[in-house]
Amino acid sequence: MNIVDIINKKRVKKSLTHEELDYAFNGYLNGTVKDYQMSSLLMAICINGMTDEEIFDLTDIFIKSGDVLDLSSIPGIKVDKHSTGGVGDKVTLIIGPIVSSCGVPVPKMSGRGLGHTGGTIDKLESIKGFNTNLTEEEFINQIKKIGFAVTGQTKNLCPMDKVIYALRDVTGTVASIPLIATSIMSKKIAGGADKILLDVKVGDGALMKTREDAEELASIMERIGKAHHRDVKCEITDMNIPLGHNIGNSLEVIEAMDTLHGRKGRLYDLCLDISAEMISLSKGISLTEAKKEAEDAVTSGRAFNKFEEFVKAQGGDLSSLEVSTKTIDIISNKEGTLKNIRALALGELSVSLGAGRRTKEESIDHTVGIVVHKDVGEHVNVGDKLATLYVKDKNLELNQDDYFEID
Amino acid sequence: MNIVDIINKKRVKKSLTHEELDYAFNGYLNGTVKDYQMSSLLMAICINGMTDEEIFDLTDIFIKSGDVLDLSSIPGIKVDKHSTGGVGDKVTLIIGPIVSSCGVPVPKMSGRGLGHTGGTIDKLESIKGFNTNLTEEEFINQIKKIGFAVTGQTKNLCPMDKVIYALRDVTGTVASIPLIATSIMSKKIAGGADKILLDVKVGDGALMKTREDAEELASIMERIGKAHHRDVKCEITDMNIPLGHNIGNSLEVIEAMDTLHGRKGRLYDLCLDISAEMISLSKGISLTEAKKEAEDAVTSGRAFNKFEEFVKAQGGDLSSLEVSTKTIDIISNKEGTLKNIRALALGELSVSLGAGRRTKEESIDHTVGIVVHKDVGEHVNVGDKLATLYVKDKNLELNQDDYFEID
Repeated sequence: MNIVDIINKKRVKKSLTHEELDYAFNGYLNGTVKDYQMSSLLMAICINGMTDEEIFDLTDIFIKSGDVLDLSSIPGIKVDKHSTGGVGDKVTLIIGPIVSSCGVPVPKMSGRGLGHTGGTIDKLESIKGFNTNLTEEEFINQIKKIGFAVTGQTKNLCPMDKVIYALRDVTGTVASIPLIATSIMSKKIAGGADKILLDVKVGDGALMKTREDAEELASIMERIGKAHHRDVKCEITDMNIPLGHNIGNSLEVIEAMDTLHGRKGRLYDLCLDISAEMISLSKGISLTEAKKEAEDAVTSGRAFNKFEEFVKAQGGDLSSLEVSTKTIDIISNKEGTLKNIRALALGELSVSLGAGRRTKEESIDHTVGIVVHKDVGEHVNVGDKLATLYVKDKNLELNQDDYFEID
Repeated sequence: MNIVDIINKKRVKKSLTHEELDYAFNGYLNGTVKDYQMSSLLMAICINGMTDEEIFDLTDIFIKSGDVLDLSSIPGIKVDKHSTGGVGDKVTLIIGPIVSSCGVPVPKMSGRGLGHTGGTIDKLESIKGFNTNLTEEEFINQIKKIGFAVTGQTKNLCPMDKVIYALRDVTGTVASIPLIATSIMSKKIAGGADKILLDVKVGDGALMKTREDAEELASIMERIGKAHHRDVKCEITDMNIPLGHNIGNSLEVIEAMDTLHGRKGRLYDLCLDISAEMISLSKGISLTEAKKEAEDAVTSGRAFNKFEEFVKAQGGDLSSLEVSTKTIDIISNKEGTLKNIRALALGELSVSLGAGRRTKEESIDHTVGIVVHKDVGEHVNVGDKLATLYVKDKNLELNQDDYFEID
């Protein structure tokens, strides 16, 4: 076998066999295939696509490149939830406590943010002392004990995904539905949960820009799950406007706690829906029953207590949460209806404030971010506060129209 | 500007501006764009193509990456001829002497062979003492003096083409008509000739496998010429069967001399046609008149004398030509009509005998090769000699049907 022949085959839109995919990808992992050859193959895959068979094979190769977590010692049907990421997405911090306080174990491995979308691990690290690096034993023991744990990494899961993702990031080969599906599903399957709920974001602030693409991604991930004997359910949720009102690390933890205290709104509704799906998946009960359980977990205070228990179990001190004391208000210079809040622009603004990373090496500031005060559809008067920026440096020039569409 | 944005733009089939192409390709030449980024862009170009505007811009960038040869001190209209390469292609060694002996200056820069197609420089190096590395001054002076010179390299012409070609060769991105056209035309234009005759080979043994592709390549090269104010004329010639009877370096020099002595056949006819085109292009006379001049150059012996003069001028000693004394005959085990001589298979066989290179680092054996004794359409009896292999090592197992189709 020869890597140039394999690349040429995909260039002319032919399907690769399991053996050929294995030769190319494992060759890249062990150094016999060069990065300039892999990037050429990845671009051919981006443009010419992959068949289901190729996607299943590649997912299998990704999974087998590392360890697979064994969660069988934890009683109950474990449900993992994954979101394709978006601006202001703190859903994990809300549904984890709700679902686990209803008796469903939630093993959650999360990533750091890159670009305009934040990562759950970064958000949790705004809590002083919080350990995002659990060992496999600590991770499993905590789920056994309190039903919920979040860690950045336990074992050597899918090392292939790490090297391929890093290469895709710098070679214009991120936007491939087969490659995105392979990346997500290999990690979820290696993560060991029995059932997987996938929340595919669609819109301006998300990786999938159109509903059509989001549906295609959801559908192929469900088919991968089936091929690997895992129950997979996909939700598609809108990400044209930010999720909730807060963007930025400690600000998002604070909003997650508010929501667990029962603060209503779009974020609350979405989290209740996802929680109900997870509970229903695990317990085999109807969505209506499951939603009742989830609501009861919030109103009774059980969900918030579980959040505190979870933070404490991982060594965090909630009283340490800090937001910057320097703020800048965006004051409306227009009257009219708020037609749109531009998620992507706000996400990028929060990165430029220091809340996110542009490269993997950058460090982030947990205290900065954005709080949006208005919802889409609301009437806005001249002089109304649209948003407050929590900043390090008050010298900032902003054009309100880049973020808020008022008409 | 950002290389990932540029790659993404080509991935979604948008056109790149001159500025963007310049940023990407000159960035690669100076190291700010990495090889894994360039190979990803090259694959996107392979699959999504380029507009004429992009091809003209890229040719311009290739030309400006190095020096441009100034041949204006040589009197007369200089005509360069380029063939896209094929098995047994020794045309340059025949038409150079014919055309220059008719008073048309022929400045010829040639390459080494790679893969199953041989290179003119390698063929000439089977002549002991032959200098294929003329300085610019030596090159120009020789053309002024005897009208014909062949060199591997004079100045630093199109260094961009060298690095891009080397990367394409190992990343499955060779088969792109826009990239092939850019590579050929940038070198021809930088080579300084006034008029350019292009011989595009089509068929099994050539880079272009179908007539449609060959016509597309010819047409885009003509348009590039027009955009750079050079007269370009393209011929498309068949390369399903080898060109002439001999394959291998010294064997091809010998066949070139036989043809200059007037040996008739397909190779002779083709060389006369190409010579006529070049003479007609340069002198502005009709093809019929030009062909008469070319024929006269051969029959009078002027063309062969010019060949001897040319070899001597570059330091070569024709009496040194050597072919291996070890031979293997392929004896027909079938009776019937010779339907096909497989050029690609014979080209690859000659490489495996040592006549060509698989990688740029391999050295070649000038004494080995293949002589085919039959022509397509001839009747063959059991026991007839189909070909003789000139080899280093007589241990070779061959299946006649891989090379000759007899029915």
